[in-house]
Amino acid sequence: MTGNSFGKLFKFTTWGESHGEAIGCVIDGVPSQISLTEADIQADLNRRKTGQSKFTTQRKEPDTVKILSGVFEGQTTGCPISLLIQNQDQRSRDYSEIKDTFRPSHADYVYQQKYGIRDYRGGGRSSARETAMRVAAGAVAKKILGDSVKIRGAVVQIGTETINTENWNWDAVRENPFFCPDASAVADWKKYLEEIMQDGSSVGAVIQIEAEGVPLGLGSPVYDKLDADIAKAMMSINAVKGVEIGNGFDAASMRGEENADEMIMENGQVRYLSNNSGGVVGGISNGDTIVTRFAVKPTSSILKPLRSIDVNGNNIEVSTKGRHDPCVGIRAVPVGEAMLACVLADHHLINKSFN
Amino acid sequence: MTGNSFGKLFKFTTWGESHGEAIGCVIDGVPSQISLTEADIQADLNRRKTGQSKFTTQRKEPDTVKILSGVFEGQTTGCPISLLIQNQDQRSRDYSEIKDTFRPSHADYVYQQKYGIRDYRGGGRSSARETAMRVAAGAVAKKILGDSVKIRGAVVQIGTETINTENWNWDAVRENPFFCPDASAVADWKKYLEEIMQDGSSVGAVIQIEAEGVPLGLGSPVYDKLDADIAKAMMSINAVKGVEIGNGFDAASMRGEENADEMIMENGQVRYLSNNSGGVVGGISNGDTIVTRFAVKPTSSILKPLRSIDVNGNNIEVSTKGRHDPCVGIRAVPVGEAMLACVLADHHLINKSFN
Amino acid sequence: MTGNSFGKLFKFTTWGESHGEAIGCVIDGVPSQISLTEADIQADLNRRKTGQSKFTTQRKEPDTVKILSGVFEGQTTGCPISLLIQNQDQRSRDYSEIKDTFRPSHADYVYQQKYGIRDYRGGGRSSARETAMRVAAGAVAKKILGDSVKIRGAVVQIGTETINTENWNWDAVRENPFFCPDASAVADWKKYLEEIMQDGSSVGAVIQIEAEGVPLGLGSPVYDKLDADIAKAMMSINAVKGVEIGNGFDAASMRGEENADEMIMENGQVRYLSNNSGGVVGGISNGDTIVTRFAVKPTSSILKPLRSIDVNGNNIEVSTKGRHDPCVGIRAVPVGEAMLACVLADHHLINKSFN
Amino acid sequence: MTGNSFGKLFKFTTWGESHGEAIGCVIDGVPSQISLTEADIQADLNRRKTGQSKFTTQRKEPDTVKILSGVFEGQTTGCPISLLIQNQDQRSRDYSEIKDTFRPSHADYVYQQKYGIRDYRGGGRSSARETAMRVAAGAVAKKILGDSVKIRGAVVQIGTETINTENWNWDAVRENPFFCPDASAVADWKKYLEEIMQDGSSVGAVIQIEAEGVPLGLGSPVYDKLDADIAKAMMSINAVKGVEIGNGFDAASMRGEENADEMIMENGQVRYLSNNSGGVVGGISNGDTIVTRFAVKPTSSILKPLRSIDVNGNNIEVSTKGRHDPCVGIRAVPVGEAMLACVLADHHLINKSFN
Repeated sequence: MTGNSFGKLFKFTTWGESHGEAIGCVIDGVPSQISLTEADIQADLNRRKTGQSKFTTQRKEPDTVKILSGVFEGQTTGCPISLLIQNQDQRSRDYSEIKDTFRPSHADYVYQQKYGIRDYRGGGRSSARETAMRVAAGAVAKKILGDSVKIRGAVVQIGTETINTENWNWDAVRENPFFCPDASAVADWKKYLEEIMQDGSSVGAVIQIEAEGVPLGLGSPVYDKLDADIAKAMMSINAVKGVEIGNGFDAASMRGEENADEMIMENGQVRYLSNNSGGVVGGISNGDTIVTRFAVKPTSSILKPLRSIDVNGNNIEVSTKGRHDPCVGIRAVPVGEAMLACVLADHHLINKSFN
Repeated sequence: MTGNSFGKLFKFTTWGESHGEAIGCVIDGVPSQISLTEADIQADLNRRKTGQSKFTTQRKEPDTVKILSGVFEGQTTGCPISLLIQNQDQRSRDYSEIKDTFRPSHADYVYQQKYGIRDYRGGGRSSARETAMRVAAGAVAKKILGDSVKIRGAVVQIGTETINTENWNWDAVRENPFFCPDASAVADWKKYLEEIMQDGSSVGAVIQIEAEGVPLGLGSPVYDKLDADIAKAMMSINAVKGVEIGNGFDAASMRGEENADEMIMENGQVRYLSNNSGGVVGGISNGDTIVTRFAVKPTSSILKPLRSIDVNGNNIEVSTKGRHDPCVGIRAVPVGEAMLACVLADHHLINKSFN
Repeated sequence: MTGNSFGKLFKFTTWGESHGEAIGCVIDGVPSQISLTEADIQADLNRRKTGQSKFTTQRKEPDTVKILSGVFEGQTTGCPISLLIQNQDQRSRDYSEIKDTFRPSHADYVYQQKYGIRDYRGGGRSSARETAMRVAAGAVAKKILGDSVKIRGAVVQIGTETINTENWNWDAVRENPFFCPDASAVADWKKYLEEIMQDGSSVGAVIQIEAEGVPLGLGSPVYDKLDADIAKAMMSINAVKGVEIGNGFDAASMRGEENADEMIMENGQVRYLSNNSGGVVGGISNGDTIVTRFAVKPTSSILKPLRSIDVNGNNIEVSTKGRHDPCVGIRAVPVGEAMLACVLADHHLINKSFN
Repeated sequence: MTGNSFGKLFKFTTWGESHGEAIGCVIDGVPSQISLTEADIQADLNRRKTGQSKFTTQRKEPDTVKILSGVFEGQTTGCPISLLIQNQDQRSRDYSEIKDTFRPSHADYVYQQKYGIRDYRGGGRSSARETAMRVAAGAVAKKILGDSVKIRGAVVQIGTETINTENWNWDAVRENPFFCPDASAVADWKKYLEEIMQDGSSVGAVIQIEAEGVPLGLGSPVYDKLDADIAKAMMSINAVKGVEIGNGFDAASMRGEENADEMIMENGQVRYLSNNSGGVVGGISNGDTIVTRFAVKPTSSILKPLRSIDVNGNNIEVSTKGRHDPCVGIRAVPVGEAMLACVLADHHLINKSFN
C-alpha cells in the first residue's frame, strides 16, 4: 500500500485500523509559531464523533486526541506534529463470520485480492474510522489559514429528501443531528431516517462545503488546479461517488451567458454578480466563496441480506449485524470541511512560495 | 506556477501557450521495450483536432507530433519521451482589445492578479490548447496498458439535450461530430447547436468515459484512491465542474440494497450483478468496467456581451469575437479518455511495485 | 518545517523531539504478507542504543518499540506501519542555561533564526535521538529486501586512528564497542578515546557501509541515481559532512585504466575484476557489492569552553555539561546501515514497477 | 526509467540522448515577473561547451538554446519554461562496434540488463551531454536567487596534481582551460594532462563550488537537509564518486574544539570565526558561504585496451576511439555550479512558504 499521505507542503499521513490499538496522523509542513492545543483539535473531533444521536453508529469512542510532538509551550515549532487517538471501543468480539465473507460494495473483496491478507476487524484500514484523523489534520490546517477563512458544511440531501435552499440557515446546522441547514426539513428527515433504520437499510446523502474569505490566487493552473485538488480530496473520503464545484453538473445544461460570473467595479472593489464558478476559475481561487458538493453512497453495511461470496468461492448471503451508520453522509460533514481546509492550507503555502 | 505535471510513476509534464511557438510534453516513467511511433500518438490527436466540423473552433492546427527522445529503433528505451507540436495557426492578430480586458469566467483576471503578468494571446497557458498534450500522453499511457484495456468515451448530454441510454452504440460515436452514442439524437443535437451558434452563445456538456478490462487491484486505499485520482484528473481538464464515478450523485438517493453490487460465483469466476460502483470499491478497481462522467461548463468565450472590468479598473462590456468552440465539451471526449488512461497507467505501475 | 519523510515508494516519516513524550515513525509503502514483529525491529534498535559502553552517552533509553498499525497476525497488511518509542530518560532538568545560549556548530542558532522558536530540551528535533527511528525503518526495509541482501557497517577511522584494512574481519565488529573491524586496533582506539573523554573533547569518524547481494538494476539513471540517493541518505544523518561511493575521492587521482572495473565471463557469469565503482555504475547497481563511506564530524557538545552568543546578542562562553557521545560516529553505524537499507528497498520497489 | 526530474518547487525535467535530434528541459516552478532571455542561459552554456580547448572532447556543439514557452515580453509568466538545444554534431557514424560491446565502468552493461534495450549512440541518455540542460536550468535558478547570491566553482585537483590554496584567485579561474584557481599551477597541469592524453588515458578531478550571500534559513532539518540535497545534486552528476560539505572528510580526524565554528557578535552582527561547517548546520544554511567539493572519476572512455564482454557473452578487449574528454571533471565546474544554484533556488522557494 501507499497513498496514506495527502498534500504537498502541508502534508499529513494517517495510520491505524478500525479495531487496532490506536489511530494517528503525522502532519509535516506546519509553519512555526502558531498557537495549538489539543482542545483546538478536540472541538472538531467531537463534531464527527459517533454515538451522539441514534442516527449514527453506536460505537462509543471518546476520540481523545494527544499531541505527541511538534508543539512546545503551546506553539508549533515547525517540527512534525504527531497526533494519536487510542481506540477504546474496539469490541473484542467474534469475527468468525466477517472473517470469511466479502460484504458487497465493501472493500473486503478487493483488499483480499490485492493484498492477500486483510485486517477484517471492523473494516480494518478501509473503515470510516480513518476519517477522524482527517478531521484532526483539518483542525491544524484551519489554524494555518487563520480566522479570516471560514469553512463550514451542511447536508443538503439525505436519500430522497432535499432541502429548500431558501430556508438555508447556517445556525440551524448545529441544532439538529443531521447537519441540515433547513430547520423546516428536520422533522421529515427524522421520520424518513427512522423508517430506513427500521427497514435495516441505509441511504446516501449530498454534502455541501463552503469556504468564505479565501484570497484570490490559490491554486496552480494546470494539473494541480485548486478545484482538481478539492475533487481528489473529497473523492478520497470513504463512500464518496461524485464531486462538484460551483454549479457543477448543472453547468452542463446552461448557456454561456447564464453561467458566466459577470464582474463589476464597486467602490474600488471587484464584485462578482454571481458565483456559478464556486470561487474557482482556471484552477485558481477568484476571491469569491469556494463552494463544493459531494455525494455519499448509502452505507454498504445493512441488515438486508445480499448475495455475495465467501473466501472459499461459495455463493452466500450476507447481512451485516454490526454497529453502523444508517447514513454515513451525516458524519461526512466535518470530514469534508477538514479536507477542504487541508487543500486550502496546502495551496496557501504553495502560493506563498511564488509571491 | 507549479503543477504542470501529472502522475507519480507514469509522470508527464506539459508546457506551452496557445499562441506560442510550440507546445510539448515530457513523459517520464515509460517502461522500456514498448513499440511506439508518432503515428500511434497522431491517431488520438486527430480525434481531438479542431476544425473538423463547424461545431468546433475554426483554428486550423495540424497538430503534427514529433518524438524527440526516448524511442530508439521503434521501441521505448525507458528514457523520458519528449513530444513536440509546432503551433501553426497562432494568428498574428491584433491583441489590443483582449490585452486589457478580463473576460468573465475566463482565467484572465485571476492570472493577472496572481502572476502580475499574463500571456493574453489566445488564453496563453489557460487555453484548451494544452489538452492536445494530455491526449498525446494518453496515447503513450494506452501503450503501457496494452490492448486488454479498452478506453472510450462519449458525450451523453449537450446543453439541455440528453441521450436515450437504451440506444447506446459505441460505433455511433465515431459517426457524428458530437461523439454522441445515440444515433437517433444526432439530428436534434445538430439543430440545437446550430441555434446556439446563431445566438452567439455556447452550452455545456456531460461526457462519460469507460475503461473495460482493467484488472482488479489498481488504486491505493486511502488518499490515492483510484477514483480520487480519476476525480482529480477529470477536474483538471479545462472547464470541468463536476465528476462522478459509477452512479455518482444518483447514489445519494438510493438505499443500501439498491446501490450494492452483489457478487456471485459463476463458472469459477466472480460476477458482479450490477456496476453502481463504476468499477471502484474502497479506492481499488474491482475488475468491472470503470465508469466516470464529468460536466463541462459552457464555453466562456461568447459573442453575447457581458459585464466585466478592464486592467484599469473600469466597468466594460466584453464580447469575444475570436474562433471558439460553441461547446468545448465535445472535444473533451478524447481528453477525458487520455486522462483516464494516464491514471490507469500510473496505478498499473504502482501496483506492480507492491506485487 | 517540512522534509521529515524519506523515500518515494518505500516512504517513512519520523516525528518527535529528544525530550518529548515519545518518538515515532510511519512507514508507508510496505508490501503485504511480510512477517514482521517488534523483535525484528528491536534487534537493530539495540545495536544503536546508548549507554552500552562508556564510549556513548549515558542517557539510558530502553528504546522499546511498539507496532501500532499495519501488522495483523504477524504479517504486514500493506497498510502504514506506525512505530512508537516512549522516551524514558528525558530528564526533567534545569534547562535555563541551554535555553538562552547557542552552542557553536549545533543547530540551536539556525533553528531559532529560522523558526523563531525552538524546543531547546536536549536539542529537540535536531537531536541524534531521531536516528532511532531511522534504524526502526531500516529494520522494516531489510525485511522487504530479504535475506539475500546483506547490509553491514563498520567504523574505519576514529579521529586520527585508522584501521589496517588487511585485518578486516566482519566478526570483529560485534566484539568491541567501536564497531571496529580490525581487532588489532581496538586497544589503541580505546586508549585514544579515553584521552579524548578525559580532555572533555570529542572526535569524528569515518563509517563504511556495504550491501552484498544487491541485484543489478536498482537505481534510476539521471537525478535519482542509486548513488545520488545514497549520498542524500547518508548526508541527512546528523553530523555527516562527506559521502563516498566506491573509491570515492581516491578516484580523482587515478587514471582511467586503474579505475575501470574490468569484466570477464567466467562459467557463464559476469565477474568484475575490481570494485572501484562501489557497485554502482551510471546510477544503477551493477550486481557487485555496494560500498559507501561517510565522515562524521566530532560531537559539537563538548566540555571545552567555546565562544558563542546568547539569545540577547551577548558574547558568551559555552561549555556543554550534558550527557553526550565523545564520538557520535560510533553509533552512526546502525544508522548508516538502516539508511542504506531504506534506499535499496525504495529502489527495489521502483524497479519492480518498470520490469 | 523515472528520475529525470530534480527539485520540489523549483523542479526541472531533462530529456534527450547524446546523438538524438535534440536535448531539452522543462522547468516548472519559476516565479513570474523575472526578466529572462536566451542570452542569460547561453552565457552559462558556453562555459560548459566542448571543443574550447584541446583538453575537452572535440565534438563541436554550439549548444544554442531556445526558450519555447514560459517567457512573454522578456519576463517569466510563471508558466513552465521549455528549453531546447538541437544536436548538431551527432556524427552519423558507424556504431557497429560500440553497439555490441560493453565498455567497462560505463553504463552500457547495466542499461542493457535493466532495460533490455539501449540507445548505444554516444552513450545515449547516460552521456554527459545531458549536463548541458543542468547548466541551462541552473542559469534560470540563478535568476531566482538574484544577484546577492554568488555561485562559482573551480577545479582544485586534477589527477595527482593539486593546487596551493594560498594562491587561490577566483579571477584566475576564467583565464585557463582548467578552471584552476591557482595560476601558478596551470603550466604543470597542462603538461600533466598532455601526457595523459598522449597515453590515451584519462584522470579524475576534484571540484569545489561555493555560494556566497546565501541567507540563513534555507534547508529543512531532517531528511531534506540543505547539505543532503546538495550531496544528492552533486552525486547525480555523471562520474561523481564523492561529495563533501565544509571540511568534509577532514572533519573525521578533528577534535570538537577544532571543528566548531565559534560565533561572536561584532557591530551588532553575528560573525563566525571559521567555516568548517561549509555554511550548513543542522541541515540549514547558517549565513556563511556554502562550500562543497566533489570528486569526479577518470573518464571511462580511454584508448587503452581493457577487458570486457560483448552482448553475446564473449570475453573481449575494448578500446574507445571516439571523441572524449581526458578529464570530464573540468567541464563539471559549470555543472556543479548549476546544481548548487538549483538546490538553493528550490530551498529558497520552500523557505518562503514557511515564513
